[in-house]
Amino acid sequence: MELFGSHGNYNVEGVDTLNACYGGTNALFNAVNWIESSAWDGRFALVVASDIAVYGPGNARPTGGCAAIAMLVGPNAPLVIEPGIRGTHMEHVYDFYKPILNSEYPVVDGQLSIQSYLKALDMCYSAYSKRFQEKIGKSFSLKEAEYIVFHSPYNKLVRRAIARLQFNDFLVNPDDPAFKEVQRYRHQQREESYFNRGLATAFEKTSNDLYATKVLPSTHLSVELGNCYSASLYVGLLSLIDQVSDELSGKRVILFSYGSGLSSSMFSILVRGSVEFMKQKQKISKRLSQRQFVDPAEFTKLLGLRESHLLASAYIPEGPLNLFPGTFYLDKVDDKYRRYYKRKLKDSKL
Amino acid sequence: MELFGSHGNYNVEGVDTLNACYGGTNALFNAVNWIESSAWDGRFALVVASDIAVYGPGNARPTGGCAAIAMLVGPNAPLVIEPGIRGTHMEHVYDFYKPILNSEYPVVDGQLSIQSYLKALDMCYSAYSKRFQEKIGKSFSLKEAEYIVFHSPYNKLVRRAIARLQFNDFLVNPDDPAFKEVQRYRHQQREESYFNRGLATAFEKTSNDLYATKVLPSTHLSVELGNCYSASLYVGLLSLIDQVSDELSGKRVILFSYGSGLSSSMFSILVRGSVEFMKQKQKISKRLSQRQFVDPAEFTKLLGLRESHLLASAYIPEGPLNLFPGTFYLDKVDDKYRRYYKRKLKDSKL
Repeated sequence: MELFGSHGNYNVEGVDTLNACYGGTNALFNAVNWIESSAWDGRFALVVASDIAVYGPGNARPTGGCAAIAMLVGPNAPLVIEPGIRGTHMEHVYDFYKPILNSEYPVVDGQLSIQSYLKALDMCYSAYSKRFQEKIGKSFSLKEAEYIVFHSPYNKLVRRAIARLQFNDFLVNPDDPAFKEVQRYRHQQREESYFNRGLATAFEKTSNDLYATKVLPSTHLSVELGNCYSASLYVGLLSLIDQVSDELSGKRVILFSYGSGLSSSMFSILVRGSVEFMKQKQKISKRLSQRQFVDPAEFTKLLGLRESHLLASAYIPEGPLNLFPGTFYLDKVDDKYRRYYKRKLKDSKL
Repeated sequence: MELFGSHGNYNVEGVDTLNACYGGTNALFNAVNWIESSAWDGRFALVVASDIAVYGPGNARPTGGCAAIAMLVGPNAPLVIEPGIRGTHMEHVYDFYKPILNSEYPVVDGQLSIQSYLKALDMCYSAYSKRFQEKIGKSFSLKEAEYIVFHSPYNKLVRRAIARLQFNDFLVNPDDPAFKEVQRYRHQQREESYFNRGLATAFEKTSNDLYATKVLPSTHLSVELGNCYSASLYVGLLSLIDQVSDELSGKRVILFSYGSGLSSSMFSILVRGSVEFMKQKQKISKRLSQRQFVDPAEFTKLLGLRESHLLASAYIPEGPLNLFPGTFYLDKVDDKYRRYYKRKLKDSKL
């Protein structure tokens, strides 16, 4: 079976939006805007957030995971993006980038990456809160949200992120009785606190309950899969749906999207209908149980194989093909670098 | 002066949309949709269409040009995109593509590229006409438009494109007296006619007046500059404004955007206010006269210099710096591939 032959023919709009792990979020915003615009013709929008990110050999490699998320966007959806309330922060930062065009591996400044993520979180939270006040007419704090889903490069950063948001709430309302253990940070400047270990530890302690109740359900999949890059935030949302299902009904979920470079946004979803069908359809536990585990040495070998054919032409992929039925895969690359795909059939033994 | 330091800080939305020469058009649609959406906060959108495309040594290289276009999008504009009327065609085609990631040069299938452009034009014209009928309540033909602006890889293809649109009109209304010379093509199938030389010549002849009155004014800049890639369509629109200015008032302008791969759209603009200020601001004739001409050998040498530093780190650009005042330029690339820019000052002798 040949896919994408020259007979393909689609009257659809939209092209790739690229910005590290933020591309899918921008595509989602574009899709929602389209549906609200005069250009909308009644059809659904389809947003696909995916990535090809891998790390080179070294400490960071085991943090990498993979996932792709497809989202159907249309009217009368059970998950509704709150209109007019979002905060965005963009900044020119070399925290994680791919300047070596013939390599898949990024250049990473680990410390700067953490600082950039936390600063973007501060800025987006502040901008989101301002818009919330303007639209809803009351001041925003974490009490207004039942769940918070974060872009998750690794779980420890998510743990720090919720502590950081609580620190933001503390600066706005330091006299709240919940903050009596952290009064020594009353006059701490935001900008100078990204690597203040005492502060981080103190707020991780005060945010323990907050993390357990409002964040933990969205982290299940990232912890199992690793960094899902562009799909990460939406993998978190799916995890939340899987863990909580219809107890989400009527609740507000805050989402924080981050892409290195950097682009970041905070926005919120109101749950207006049942999401149990999503949980049923996704079968998360079953699919997690079907994974095959390989040794690090085997994984390194497979990535090496991939690396050695990165710019290949006239190439037929080797290697194992342990694919779920229905999966598309690269069949060959011809001498003009044209790529041909096939799909594993249901009854195929590939 | 250093640009884009780590102090940059912007609450703005939007990231790169990429798809060969179509990216700017998709960004324009996204910007207009945003302004019509609940996410809009009253600010202008800025759309920048630009490219880094160059051809390798050979016949195609002299067709290459360059330009970047910035468009301010907001309410009460003199140029209004007609709401709800556009036709789009997407197809998976290897006509012009860049599979060699460590090279700037594309792989091109010239014949397929022409066929893809003309087929996309047919499909978009048909989809646009259908939407026009639905929204405006009458059938569309070229008589409904005062001007037509095409994506222009080279002028000869634009000449073929207007002939092709007239062929489309002919198939819908073959008994129009204007078509009495081409009756032998009454039963010609669209799909089999892309390389029918007799047909192309016949319709180029019947479309001579059409080209001269409705297309020519938009081609002035492309003919002077060469292929402007992502900016091409909007360079055409600017050329039209420069040549016709306020005689555009009240008129409908059709635009056809094409990006290899392929993505394409036809849409229309209604001119609702004076555009003379754009003409005055752009000073096209003056700026064209300020260009410096270099020999092909010198041009080849400069592109060779560029090619040899494509993936460079720890690099300080050499070569001449004949820049207009106010131009940004690459000052250096450090050993971590981070790029630093400067701007030529008004009184600088660089």
